[in-house]
Amino acid sequence: MNRVNQLFGIKYPIIQGGMVWCSGWKLCAAVSNAGGLGLIGSGSMYSDVLEEHILKCKKATNNPFGVNIPLLYPHVETHIQKVINNDVKIVFTSAGNPKKYTHVLKSHGITVVHVVSNLKFAQKSLDSGVDAIVVEGFEAGGHNGKNETTTMCLVPLISKKIDIPIIAAGGISCGKSMLAAISLGADGVQIGSRFAVSKESSAHINFKNQVIEANEGDTILTMKDITPVRLIKNEFYDNIARMYNQKKSIDEIKEYLGKGRAKKGIFDGDLANGELEIGQVSCSIENIFSAKEIVESIITDYRSQLLKVNQDFGL
Amino acid sequence: MNRVNQLFGIKYPIIQGGMVWCSGWKLCAAVSNAGGLGLIGSGSMYSDVLEEHILKCKKATNNPFGVNIPLLYPHVETHIQKVINNDVKIVFTSAGNPKKYTHVLKSHGITVVHVVSNLKFAQKSLDSGVDAIVVEGFEAGGHNGKNETTTMCLVPLISKKIDIPIIAAGGISCGKSMLAAISLGADGVQIGSRFAVSKESSAHINFKNQVIEANEGDTILTMKDITPVRLIKNEFYDNIARMYNQKKSIDEIKEYLGKGRAKKGIFDGDLANGELEIGQVSCSIENIFSAKEIVESIITDYRSQLLKVNQDFGL
Repeated sequence: MNRVNQLFGIKYPIIQGGMVWCSGWKLCAAVSNAGGLGLIGSGSMYSDVLEEHILKCKKATNNPFGVNIPLLYPHVETHIQKVINNDVKIVFTSAGNPKKYTHVLKSHGITVVHVVSNLKFAQKSLDSGVDAIVVEGFEAGGHNGKNETTTMCLVPLISKKIDIPIIAAGGISCGKSMLAAISLGADGVQIGSRFAVSKESSAHINFKNQVIEANEGDTILTMKDITPVRLIKNEFYDNIARMYNQKKSIDEIKEYLGKGRAKKGIFDGDLANGELEIGQVSCSIENIFSAKEIVESIITDYRSQLLKVNQDFGL
Repeated sequence: MNRVNQLFGIKYPIIQGGMVWCSGWKLCAAVSNAGGLGLIGSGSMYSDVLEEHILKCKKATNNPFGVNIPLLYPHVETHIQKVINNDVKIVFTSAGNPKKYTHVLKSHGITVVHVVSNLKFAQKSLDSGVDAIVVEGFEAGGHNGKNETTTMCLVPLISKKIDIPIIAAGGISCGKSMLAAISLGADGVQIGSRFAVSKESSAHINFKNQVIEANEGDTILTMKDITPVRLIKNEFYDNIARMYNQKKSIDEIKEYLGKGRAKKGIFDGDLANGELEIGQVSCSIENIFSAKEIVESIITDYRSQLLKVNQDFGL
């Protein structure tokens, strides 16, 4: 029994992470059509734009899909109204307190999943009545936890203590890492970085190429005292690092940050001044494929690795 | 074919990490007797003490065992003479350049393994002629790399590019995480933290209890500009963190560090003033068992998890 497939009504327990400036209706529908679960990343959208994406996604797929709502952005309340009004069946919430909106969403029959990066919030999510949790490790791209606990350490810990479906995230991009996540006790995986550079991702080609070129050691988790975020080190990051080094105040750093840095980097392709949010696993991503090709290659890779483990490491 | 078992002539591809103040002859022999590979951690030893441990270990086990030599400590040259003179068959080197001693050890018929935390040193190790590498992620305890790359990201990357046996380390303490490491492409695992609190570990009982009580988020990778080390946050760490915050110079921090902090914490059990080196996975370690019980429970757990993955996640 695969609890994640059952919960969402999907073929493969592969969830495409909701990502600002990458995952609109096009990527979301493509992943759902490929047998995974696509998520519209609403963090970068105004509520009417979100609605447009929901309507377009419904036309583009008959399969289940969801919306990711990061709770740290504005528009949360109107976003939630939009998903309710447009009969979205699945919502992933992240970067905030699951206690606040879970009951509202659940009261409209919506399946609710919350993203956590530590045991405390996993417990809080369970108490809030969510249907599943995404357990996201330190290696994940974009917004991240403060404890720096990796996927390898976090998933076994939480899956032992919390008995609802667990979706592992952070460091997963291929069949091998998916099999690793399942081995750790997860019921499914959430994959961001690999889909961020898919053909259907709305990210700028400059950004996609930069991710593909990224080597081991090229990303860093920074701004831990503002909102921790993993990004590719670039000129923008160097300036942030320098300001930290010079003991500038958080307000000064926030002023330099300004607004729209992620849009600049990911959507406009400004590799020097933009915030290039991506996971550590970018070091292993080497090509731009369609969402369908990605899902299929992960499943093929997963199956052959499981066969290899059985044959060579049955112990 | 299990390349790690073949290389060392052992039953299970479980290597006990060489750890200062934990892994003397007693732990080493116990792990080797249990079917894994024990390592004497020579980092905390004078060369004549190392020799004593080698001789005692030989009396305590007929199975293969090895010595771990961190290349950043003094006594490296005399340590190497001792392992050669005492006919040690397996040496793990770490925290330094594999080019320097590999050929010397190899010329005496010794199997050489080097510990790496990034792709560059994996390549360098291969070029130096080592027989295998330990690929150690950010979550590992004690000395660690600067790139912060996690086991989940590092093992698939390196195993795809480097075709010698790969031993994964960092975040592994149970059958589930061992299966995850194998799934990622490793041929075996190195386990530190779990053995650090085994009955046969020479660590102080205060230290063992502190590790068992450690929760998720209690360790941190610090002193990245001196020698990066993962430890449990305590009074000693708070002082270090405060000095960093106050922009103290590296020399001032080194002066505060002084000598023997790891001994104080791990061997003498001074939980306030000692350096409590341990991995992130300490959050999942809950009991003090013998090395034999640990190895057996890992293998049992590994097998049942592999069965579960096949049954529920054959996909």
